[in-house]
Amino acid sequence: MDLANQMLDLGRRARAAASALAQLPSEQKNAILRAIAEEIDARESAILAANAQDVAAAQRNGLAGAMTDRLTLNPERLQGMAASVRHVAALPDPVGEVIREWTQPNGLHISKVRVPIGVIGIIYESRPNVTSDSAVLCVKTGNASILRGGSESIHSNLAIAKALQHGGAKAGLPADSVLLVPQTDREAVRHMAQMDRYIDLIVPRGGDALIETVVHHARMPVIKHAHGLCIAYIDRAADLDMAVDIVVNAKTQRPGVCNAIETTLVHQEVAQSFFEKLARPLAARKVELRADEVAFAHLSALNYQPLVPATPSDWSTEFLELIMAVRVVESTDAAIEHIERYGSHHSDCIVTRDQATAEKFLRAIDSATVYWNASTRFTDGGEFGFGAEIGISTDKLHARGPMALEELTTYKYVIRGSGQVRA
Amino acid sequence: MDLANQMLDLGRRARAAASALAQLPSEQKNAILRAIAEEIDARESAILAANAQDVAAAQRNGLAGAMTDRLTLNPERLQGMAASVRHVAALPDPVGEVIREWTQPNGLHISKVRVPIGVIGIIYESRPNVTSDSAVLCVKTGNASILRGGSESIHSNLAIAKALQHGGAKAGLPADSVLLVPQTDREAVRHMAQMDRYIDLIVPRGGDALIETVVHHARMPVIKHAHGLCIAYIDRAADLDMAVDIVVNAKTQRPGVCNAIETTLVHQEVAQSFFEKLARPLAARKVELRADEVAFAHLSALNYQPLVPATPSDWSTEFLELIMAVRVVESTDAAIEHIERYGSHHSDCIVTRDQATAEKFLRAIDSATVYWNASTRFTDGGEFGFGAEIGISTDKLHARGPMALEELTTYKYVIRGSGQVRA
Repeated sequence: MDLANQMLDLGRRARAAASALAQLPSEQKNAILRAIAEEIDARESAILAANAQDVAAAQRNGLAGAMTDRLTLNPERLQGMAASVRHVAALPDPVGEVIREWTQPNGLHISKVRVPIGVIGIIYESRPNVTSDSAVLCVKTGNASILRGGSESIHSNLAIAKALQHGGAKAGLPADSVLLVPQTDREAVRHMAQMDRYIDLIVPRGGDALIETVVHHARMPVIKHAHGLCIAYIDRAADLDMAVDIVVNAKTQRPGVCNAIETTLVHQEVAQSFFEKLARPLAARKVELRADEVAFAHLSALNYQPLVPATPSDWSTEFLELIMAVRVVESTDAAIEHIERYGSHHSDCIVTRDQATAEKFLRAIDSATVYWNASTRFTDGGEFGFGAEIGISTDKLHARGPMALEELTTYKYVIRGSGQVRA
Repeated sequence: MDLANQMLDLGRRARAAASALAQLPSEQKNAILRAIAEEIDARESAILAANAQDVAAAQRNGLAGAMTDRLTLNPERLQGMAASVRHVAALPDPVGEVIREWTQPNGLHISKVRVPIGVIGIIYESRPNVTSDSAVLCVKTGNASILRGGSESIHSNLAIAKALQHGGAKAGLPADSVLLVPQTDREAVRHMAQMDRYIDLIVPRGGDALIETVVHHARMPVIKHAHGLCIAYIDRAADLDMAVDIVVNAKTQRPGVCNAIETTLVHQEVAQSFFEKLARPLAARKVELRADEVAFAHLSALNYQPLVPATPSDWSTEFLELIMAVRVVESTDAAIEHIERYGSHHSDCIVTRDQATAEKFLRAIDSATVYWNASTRFTDGGEFGFGAEIGISTDKLHARGPMALEELTTYKYVIRGSGQVRA
């Protein structure tokens, strides 16, 4: 079979599995998840051996240390993977929930009921635990999944997929509910993106090139998990100590993630005092600042290091490392304008004691998550109390921001009548 | 300016308008809608004159009578259009609704708030009142709209768009909130579909070729409004008089619409009695039946006319006229299998007195709307009590089935803290 037909075959099998999976009661889905967790435990040495192959290849290919670290599994990480499966088993099942119900004057009883989406394609890179996390959330919500991981973790992914399939089968998981695409080239992604007959939703998680390939070719809905350009605005009425805590946390606690900030805007009236307080903790963490003219003057006077003048492209750059653009603005309106123009509408924040200013900002900023006096780092399914997440959607429809179990479902209308016909 | 730049210019203008529009309070949006209704009244003769040009062209080009009728406006229809604008003004505004709110243990207060989507592209054919209906629902929900109607109604659409723009402006509608694409060729659609930077959602309403063009080229979410292949299943425990009423209604009351049925399945145990009752009312309405072997035998014995043997393609054909495929099945499972295989997952129905069978069917059929003992013709925003609809989504995500005001919104998370940072 050529690649096109192999992919179509995966699609057909997943579609058939989805119908069976959608009918399983919650109790059985949870038993399947517990069996999967046991299987991961039982296959520890096989999974670690497969992972060692990937890690060796990564080292041969000179993959960066951080990437290799993300790729590496050990007994502790594997136990964490199994624990996370058991945790999902214990969460409430959103499928079957009656979202709303009402009776029309003609007696028709209408209920809007939460149902699985069907078949979900997940395309990702690097970390092998995404294989388990994604498949397990799909099983919990009654969706079949077609997983396509990166080449650097293919042996680990195959071993983990085998654990999911075999463990699941022991407790009645329909065959083909969890499928892993063995091909790791871009061509497989293009084929998946064209299979709207068999795949209801594609979730790409990864770099710009991967996401662009999916968006360009996709015929079905896509929910992108891209990076974010998040911005903090320090208002003239800010508690400046709080502002420093928030900026330091949002920039430095984990600079490589999508909800870290890339730019800080500060109101001109408090710029000098804010920079005086910010300089020491930020310099201690070796954060390079790229400053507009006014900010540059303040920061040079404080001998801040490392400091460079901002260029226009800095406002639209997701540094994802210990670099931050800073700009002094003359008003909240200017801050809003900057964020709407340069931000990626992921997570943005205002620090202020002025409620009217805060509410204006919260209304005007059209981002998935808008904060008043808190770090943007809280944009996360766990921090929201969702119990699990498949990622953070940077799209606007169906799922916006943290995407958890509920966002892996859709709805249908179930209508019960007594012979009504339309006049 | 070439077409590409003209389209980008429309996009940029709509994007700017959307930001302003999103901030308008409900009261002002309603005042704008009332001003639009007045303007439609005031421009009656100009709109009718423009429409007469379209109708004359349609007659010159030999457009079918039904198409010309859908195209034609008269004082009554125009008053209906204005009345419908006033009706939308009176509906509740979904924007700003707090869908859910909670406080995390760390004190963060999270609210999930309904907000406009942004810029919506609507691509449609034929009926000029879609111009007004779509734009008005977008204004109500704080969305800018880019409308692209068909060539056959271009003069009417331009005249109606002028009424919307001028009427709206009198009550403070931001400039460029409602834009009509003057180009009616397919090339304009292709450009729109590529403008994911300026258009957040595209809604195509129309024939297969139009929808295929949009799906093939679109880089942004698409919510299709295509036709439906709806199916009725008459169970062995059906009230047969009720079954006849439902089938006659769902097939003949308005055969050209998406929620009319195309196929009826009947359980073998009641096939003969059902056909005996069905034959007279259906023959009276001149419905051609395309019957499988068993159904054909029953119907020939009843001298049913017009009757032809079904070919395999009949099960997947949306006749949209007075033709219906009929098939005798041996069980509810066989009916479910047929519907899942051949149906379009739009609206399907079971007629039965047996609750267990009904509930099984309602669970198993993965369609936007599933009926027990009622006609599929009720799949409609008005009949659901939504007050208005932009159409009926044949897609699965974001909006499924009748798409009304709520479905023209998305959400954002607004988070209020007191200096929380992530550990």
